[in-house]
Order: sequence, then structure tokens, then C-alpha cells
Amino acid sequence: MKKYTPKLKIIPLGGLEEVGRNMMLLEYERDIIIVDMGLQFPEEDMPGIDYIIPNISYLRGKENYIRGVIITHGHYDHIGAIPHLIFKIGNPTIFTARLTRAIIEKRQEEYKNGKHKLNIYTISHRDTIQLGVFKVEFFRVNHNIPDGLGLAIHTPCGLIIHTGDFKFDPDPIGDLPADKEKIKQLGKKGVLTLCSDSTAAEIKGYSISEKTILENLREIFKTARGRIIISTFSSLISRIQQVFMIAQELGKFVAIDGYSMKVNAEIAIKLGYLKIKKHAIISLRETKKLPDNKTVLLCTGAQGEERAVLMRIASGEHREIKIEKGDTIIFSSSVVPGNERTVQRLKDTLTRQGAEIYHYQMMDIHAGGHGAQEDLKEIIRLTKPKYFIPIHGNRYMLKIHHDLAVTCNIPEKNIFVADNGQIMEFEKNSQGYLTEKKAITDPIMVDGLGVGDISQIVLRDRKMLAADGMLVVIATINSKTGRLIQNPDLISRGFIYMKGQKRLVEQTRKKAREIIERQDPRTLPNYAFIKNKLRDEIGQFLYRKTQRRPMILPVVIEV
Amino acid sequence: MKKYTPKLKIIPLGGLEEVGRNMMLLEYERDIIIVDMGLQFPEEDMPGIDYIIPNISYLRGKENYIRGVIITHGHYDHIGAIPHLIFKIGNPTIFTARLTRAIIEKRQEEYKNGKHKLNIYTISHRDTIQLGVFKVEFFRVNHNIPDGLGLAIHTPCGLIIHTGDFKFDPDPIGDLPADKEKIKQLGKKGVLTLCSDSTAAEIKGYSISEKTILENLREIFKTARGRIIISTFSSLISRIQQVFMIAQELGKFVAIDGYSMKVNAEIAIKLGYLKIKKHAIISLRETKKLPDNKTVLLCTGAQGEERAVLMRIASGEHREIKIEKGDTIIFSSSVVPGNERTVQRLKDTLTRQGAEIYHYQMMDIHAGGHGAQEDLKEIIRLTKPKYFIPIHGNRYMLKIHHDLAVTCNIPEKNIFVADNGQIMEFEKNSQGYLTEKKAITDPIMVDGLGVGDISQIVLRDRKMLAADGMLVVIATINSKTGRLIQNPDLISRGFIYMKGQKRLVEQTRKKAREIIERQDPRTLPNYAFIKNKLRDEIGQFLYRKTQRRPMILPVVIEV
Repeated sequence: MKKYTPKLKIIPLGGLEEVGRNMMLLEYERDIIIVDMGLQFPEEDMPGIDYIIPNISYLRGKENYIRGVIITHGHYDHIGAIPHLIFKIGNPTIFTARLTRAIIEKRQEEYKNGKHKLNIYTISHRDTIQLGVFKVEFFRVNHNIPDGLGLAIHTPCGLIIHTGDFKFDPDPIGDLPADKEKIKQLGKKGVLTLCSDSTAAEIKGYSISEKTILENLREIFKTARGRIIISTFSSLISRIQQVFMIAQELGKFVAIDGYSMKVNAEIAIKLGYLKIKKHAIISLRETKKLPDNKTVLLCTGAQGEERAVLMRIASGEHREIKIEKGDTIIFSSSVVPGNERTVQRLKDTLTRQGAEIYHYQMMDIHAGGHGAQEDLKEIIRLTKPKYFIPIHGNRYMLKIHHDLAVTCNIPEKNIFVADNGQIMEFEKNSQGYLTEKKAITDPIMVDGLGVGDISQIVLRDRKMLAADGMLVVIATINSKTGRLIQNPDLISRGFIYMKGQKRLVEQTRKKAREIIERQDPRTLPNYAFIKNKLRDEIGQFLYRKTQRRPMILPVVIEV
Repeated sequence: MKKYTPKLKIIPLGGLEEVGRNMMLLEYERDIIIVDMGLQFPEEDMPGIDYIIPNISYLRGKENYIRGVIITHGHYDHIGAIPHLIFKIGNPTIFTARLTRAIIEKRQEEYKNGKHKLNIYTISHRDTIQLGVFKVEFFRVNHNIPDGLGLAIHTPCGLIIHTGDFKFDPDPIGDLPADKEKIKQLGKKGVLTLCSDSTAAEIKGYSISEKTILENLREIFKTARGRIIISTFSSLISRIQQVFMIAQELGKFVAIDGYSMKVNAEIAIKLGYLKIKKHAIISLRETKKLPDNKTVLLCTGAQGEERAVLMRIASGEHREIKIEKGDTIIFSSSVVPGNERTVQRLKDTLTRQGAEIYHYQMMDIHAGGHGAQEDLKEIIRLTKPKYFIPIHGNRYMLKIHHDLAVTCNIPEKNIFVADNGQIMEFEKNSQGYLTEKKAITDPIMVDGLGVGDISQIVLRDRKMLAADGMLVVIATINSKTGRLIQNPDLISRGFIYMKGQKRLVEQTRKKAREIIERQDPRTLPNYAFIKNKLRDEIGQFLYRKTQRRPMILPVVIEV
């Protein structure tokens, strides 16, 4: 019999394709720590779904072993599931940095059922905390929000480095460079496993420094003759800082519009992460009293989000701002996959209204928050891990990151390209395994107040309804004779415009009548049978006539 | 009174945002010629729509003036609306090149109601045709399908040059370089207006030559140790030619899979546009008898289209091909905007199955068919037009092209950035105007057999149904007493899974009963009023409970 040996388990949870993006677990015997607790936005084939949160089935029955939740930084894909999940696992303490804490608390306050109180403990990158058997140290990383933390987790089986979302930036804005020296020192202690951010593994070279962005933005600000409208992600505190720096330098004044951006700016100003001179920030109304070339509007909506500021300006629904010839509009953000066509339409509309447009494909006016290939190689070289786990990426990206690690002399057998839920085990003798064991990771869909109640059946119905609409066929039948009491009624939505298709409507009604009257009047009417007949035959009839497949809902009422 | 002067009108029709992409008109008094007659794929906010065709309202009553339809090349966005529109405008003669003709005829043959016979006249780029007052010459252009034509249209007001979709390629594959000398000669005659392709106006430099693509593909073919699977657009005859050239050179054999690609290859082989040695092309089954490194599969599906070959291979539904470790998969195409996430998922799945992936963002293994900035400037310099009309692009792209033309010394006032339908007029004295007159261009949506019958109401319903599903509330009421005969029935689709939400279902039923029983029994039941009450109050009730807004369909039956 094989002797039982305790093992360290690393389990990426959450994220649809992006492994470990939203949540990861480290487990050793009766001690568990959780890294991040975020949400993900739905795929196109999930109509109506608000977002996806990690499946925590694996933790059921183990709530008492959870020693803490560490949050690496304040983006929604790392914090967004806290209100939904934290109280389901016994409200363990959350350990995170100051800015991240403020953002988490603000979200909790706004969350509809957020009456419960979170336990949060603020840490700095100089702290060390002991969570059960795990001793956790931190190191500063750069990302496009300040206060990003990398983790050095000392476990009974060895040291695990988790980068969080990171890049190296020698000249960050409103933040210090990543702490390479500390990473190097940790590397010297011997690293068992490096879990590293794969988001930008496909991009060659080094990630773009925020200093370059600053210089390019300054050029645009200088050449603009009229108003400047600049839009970016609302969480991009460093971009907000850059805009204020340049504006102050050039004697321009900045108004902020968009709820989420205002909230984030307020938090960052209050905590000192955003440094703005008095009077530099003005209200929307005040912009109108100034000459056009003195004003900057910093706003949300660069992704073409339906209710965001830039979209409302473009559609003429913004109360204060209308585009005029001479306006310069800067999209200081990348386009999130899936938003390409919406953003294109937004640019079209703004161009038609006379604006000059700048976006990141024309010049470097946006830097992502993730390390490019040279950054990724550097952290491998600094930490010299025995094992390497590419995380925070979809399978294709993990494979690219895998190939990069191979060029850094990590043996292929020591690189674990895992799926979400796939359990990796490490023994005290420093042996690691990518096992075939899997934690349940079926995505939990949030739709309105419902969490996890939307099944594949409901989604399938939504997709069918979207493609061809539906038709309700109502037949009222005399229960004694099995005969129709009145002509069948039809209600259609999303299939055809009934008033414009009277002939088809009449034919369909007639067809329904025939189906019912075809029944043998001597037998008692079999309603399930009639319903099936209505569904099948009317479905086929309409397909022949229209080549569409509306959902047919037969309603048979006996009286 | 102002004297009547006959004018030349240029009217871009068709295309959603992309001006003139699918169709353009030239009209002078009682003579009209049409350039292209294509379709466009729908936007995301048009669920269930198959495609969009141009609105030809402007031609109503003018059918007798149509002197001909000129088709520039054989892509669906330039030919796809022919079966729907040509017989509605009196079946005028279509003038086009050999390969394009064969593709149009094939499509007509397959079109469900395609019993009518087209009138097609084959032209070569050396021909000149007289269509009413218009004398039309042609010049060869490069595009990613052979036989692309540019047009030189002599009108009473001057010479109009229409580039069609074009690029300059000094080393095209299976085609000759664009005829710059002829363009230059036309330029010397004095060009009134240049209408030029804006699709790639944002791309700096020259367009990539197919020769570069050939060299890069050859490198990948050489390094691949196992099978090669290469996927591209089915109409990319020159890419198909390249694959065969390299395969023959390296002693590999090629199987083609995917209906549309097979059809296009057959047509191109038959007409001599695709030159393939005997035995170089093999069947899918024959690939299995050869060593892996001797076989190439050329197939459809690089956009992640649901039923295309590459998708079926990835999902394990392909009868002959399963991915094995060592397979090399080449995506030799760009990603059409809107398909990014689907293609990403496809790459993930193929990577998981062990394939090595190459795509166009890693190296130049795909060239678009459209001129980049230097090509665009060159044709402006060659033709030296008085007026410039950027076409085949959405507004933002037209603006970029406008700015390029300005750098080529075209005066801003002579550059017409038009919307679809916007009429441009030219007089005999060579004066041109971008007028405010507009032809109707509301997009005509094709859904199954229905053409133009899908209204905004139907689309809005589809979007609502997709987001939150629907609920049918059925109440059977005694017409004499106004009382319910039985408990209200509910049918839900795409809203909640009813079996999992028994409590909510019961509460909703109860709510419906209350609404009906609240009516004063002394008055006769007002069904419209009851229906409205049911819709509003149950809608509000469910929103409170779920924060979803299903479509509520009340059915009130009186017996």
C-alpha cells in the first residue's frame, strides 16, 4: 500500500477560457488560501447574462479551512465576485492593498444585498502574513491600476510565486516601478513554481511604458485646436493622472464625466493615488465658460458601452456636450474583443459630426497592463522556478507562454498548461504533477438577481427566440366533443410582423384548425398529442413558407 | 428662373456603413448604369437576419433607363444581391469578366427561386462598351480574386474613374499586375472624378505582395513535421494557387474540403485561373494513405463559421479528420470584425488538441485585397482627378482617405465624403456638388425567404426575447361573470427554468389571479384593460423579484 503523503494543491478556478483569471486556490491539508475573486463578462452565446462568477463547489464542506482571501489588485475580474461568494464561504478575511480595499468596499456598498460586513485587512508590499501553513510575502508589480501585488507564498512544499496581473514599467505614472530586486532575492531562495500572467504573451518585445503614452498624449494635446475629449477605462488611474499632468502643464482644465470614472477618481484622490492641483478639475458646466482650447473632458465609453458618456455624446443624448467641428477625440484604450464593430460605429458617428479621432492603432496612446514577451522572460529569469504555470490566459495564449518558458530553459515536462479546475499537486520532495483530477468549474451565470439559475436550456431558448422569434397558437376546445369552440388565435413576436402578413396568418390559422379537427371525435381528445402535432406541423409549414424556425408554443384550453 | 441644365448624378447605394460598397449608380438624364449589386452581412443588433441587400427604391419607375449592370469582381459583397434584385429592375444586361461571370451563374443556379435567366455579357479589360451616353473602358486591378476590373466611364460631364476593390501588386499570384500604364494614359485625358476604394485607408505603406505571402507560407510548409491544415476564405483563388505551388515544390499532396471552396476551385480550374498539376490534388481519404508530412488539407472555416470544415474538425464532428499532436494549422486570412471571440475559441480548442497554430498577426501569411496608403496615393497621382470620392468604407475610413487625398493636393472642397444615398451632381462645365438630396437607403433585410419583411419592431422583439425571454400568461374567464374558470396558466421560455423556480411560478400565478379578480364583477369584463394590467403588473412584479424584464404575453380567453 502506498504511503499517504500530504500534498500542496494549486487549482485555477473561474474564468471561462482564461485559466485562473478570476480565482485560484492553494490547498495543503486543512489549510486553503484563495487568490482573487473576480467576475468575467459573458460570451456572445450567452444572451441576457450580466456576468459569470467562479464555481465554488470545490470549497463546499471546506469552508472552515479557508485561512484568507488575497486580492492582487482592484479590477473587476479580480474583485467582482466578492459580494456574491464571500458570505457563502464563511466570510473569510480579505487581505489586500489600500486602493484595492477602497474599491472593494465601494462595490460592496453598492451591491444590492450588500448589508453584510466584509472583513478586510490592509496590507502593504512590505508585510508578511501567516495564513495557516502558508507564509505570504508581497512584491510590487506594475499594472494599469496602482497598488498591484505579486505574491510569494511559502508552502511546506516550496515557494510559489504568483505574479497577479503584471508588467514591468521603469517609468510608471503615479506608482513606483515593480520591485525587481525583491523578486530577484526571492528567486535566490529557490522557487518551486512560478504562476505568471499570460494575457499579453503574444506581444513581442517589452510592454510599452506609460512614459511613452504620456509623451504621445502630450503631442496630441498640443496640436489640438479645439476641445479635447479623452476616453479610457474608468479604472485606469494612471491614465487619469497623465491627463491631469499634461493639462496642467498646458494650462488646460479637466472635467470628468461618467459615474464609474468619477467614483474611481474620488477614491484615488482621497487616498493620494491621484495627485491633482486645486482648480485643475472643473465641472462640465464650467467647460462652457472657457475657450474651447482650454478644456478637456475625460470620460467613459471608449468601448462603445451603451449608456456611457461617449456613446451619449455621439447619439446626441448628452445634456451638456455636443460634438463640434474642431473637437479632438482620443480613444486611450484598447478595444475589448467583441466590441470591435460597436467601437467602429462610434468612431463613424463622431467623425460624421466633425471630430478628429485618435486611437491606439494609430499611435501608442494606450498601454495594456500586462507584460509582453520580454517582461515574461525576465520574470522567469529572475525567479528561476523549477515548475512553471502560465495563468490568466486562454488555452492558445497559455501555449504561447509555454513556448516562451521553453526558450528560458524550463523543461517542457515542468510546464503545466492546465484547464480551469485541473488540479496540480506538489510533494515535499519538490516533485510536481499536473493531475487528471478536476474541480467542478461549470460557469455560474448571473442574470439580474438570479445567480446560477440560468441553465443551458434557458440559454438555448433565448438563442432560438433571438434567431427566429416565436408563435403562440391558442386553441379552445370543447372537452366533451373535442371540437374547436372558436377559431385558433395566433400571437407572434420576433417572427413576422403579423399585420403585414395577413395571408400567412390566415393559412397558419387554417392549418391549426385542420390539425385539431383531424382528430377522431369518438376518442377523448389527447391534449399532449394535439400540442405535439401543432408544434411539429405548424413548425414545418412555416419553415416551408418562410425558411424560418420560430419557436411554436401551442396552448390548448379545454372548457 | 434658373435654366435647366442636365447633370450627371453619382449615387452610392447599399452597404450599411460602408458607402457604395455593394452598389453605385451613375445617372445622366434617361441613362442609368449600375456598378455592382452585392450583399452585406448583418450587424450584431440584427439577430436572425441572413444578410442585407441594397434598397432600390430610387430606381422605381426608372427601370427602362437602366442600360446595364457592371460587376467589378466576383465577391459576394459585389454580386450577392443579383438574384434578389435583377428581375425587379427589368433584368438588364450584366457586363463582367469571365471568372466573375462563372461565379454569378453558379450562385444563380443555387438560388432557390433562380429559375429566371440572367443576361450576361462577358467583357475583357481591353473592351470598350457603350451604355446609353456612357462609354465604359476597363483596366486590370489586383485584388484577392482574379479578374478584378477598374472602370473608366466617359460621361457627358467628364471622365469618372471607379477603382472597384483594388490594390497594386507587382507580383500577384495567378494574375497579372494592375495596368498602371493604362490608368496613367486615362489620367492624361483629364479625370473629372476618382472614386477609390477606402477599405485599407488606415494601413500605412504599401499593401503586402502575394509574393511575400508565398515565401512565408513556404517557410511554414518546410518546417512542419506532420500534416498541414490551411484555412482561408473560399474565394481566395490566389491563395489556393499558392498552396498548390508550394505543395508541388515540396512533394506534398493537397485535399480540398468545404463546399464553397470546392465549387470556387472547380470554376477556377475549368476556366484556367487556377493551374494545378495532375495528381497534385487528392481526396480526403487518400490523405490517410500518405505519410503525414506529405499531406495538406486546404479548407474553409478560418472565421470560425459554425458548419465550416475547420470548426467541425475542432469539435470532433468531422468524419475524416481528427487533430493530432504534430499537426500544423495555418489561418491564412484576417479576422472579419465581429468574429474575434469565435476565432479565439477555435484557436484554443485546436491548441488543446495538440496543434501548432500560425495566424496572420504572427507573420505575413495573409494579404488583404485592398490598397494601403501608398497604393491609394499612387492612384490619385496617376489619375490627377479634379474631384475625389472615397468609397467602400465606413465614415471613419472615408475621412482617413479624405485626409490622404488632401496630402496629394486635392482641394478639400473637391473631396466628397458622402453617406449612402447622398447624391453627387456634376455639370457639363465640370463643376461638382455634394448635394443634400438623398436616395432612400434603409437596409433591406433578408431572413429566410423573406426579403424586407423584417421590420424594426420584429428586430426589437428578437432583442428583447434574447435578453430576458418571455412569459405567456393564460387566463380563461367566464364571459358572463368575469370570473376565472381555472387557475391562470404560465408558459415561460428563455426567462427562468420553471421547474427549478416553483415558488416564483406560484407567486406569479397568484398575482395574475388577483389582478383579474380585482375587477368589479358588476361591470362587463374589459379584456384589453385586463391584458394591459396583466402585462404591466406582472412585468413589474417579476422585475422586482428577478431584475429581469421578460416579455409578458397575456392571453385572455372568454368562454
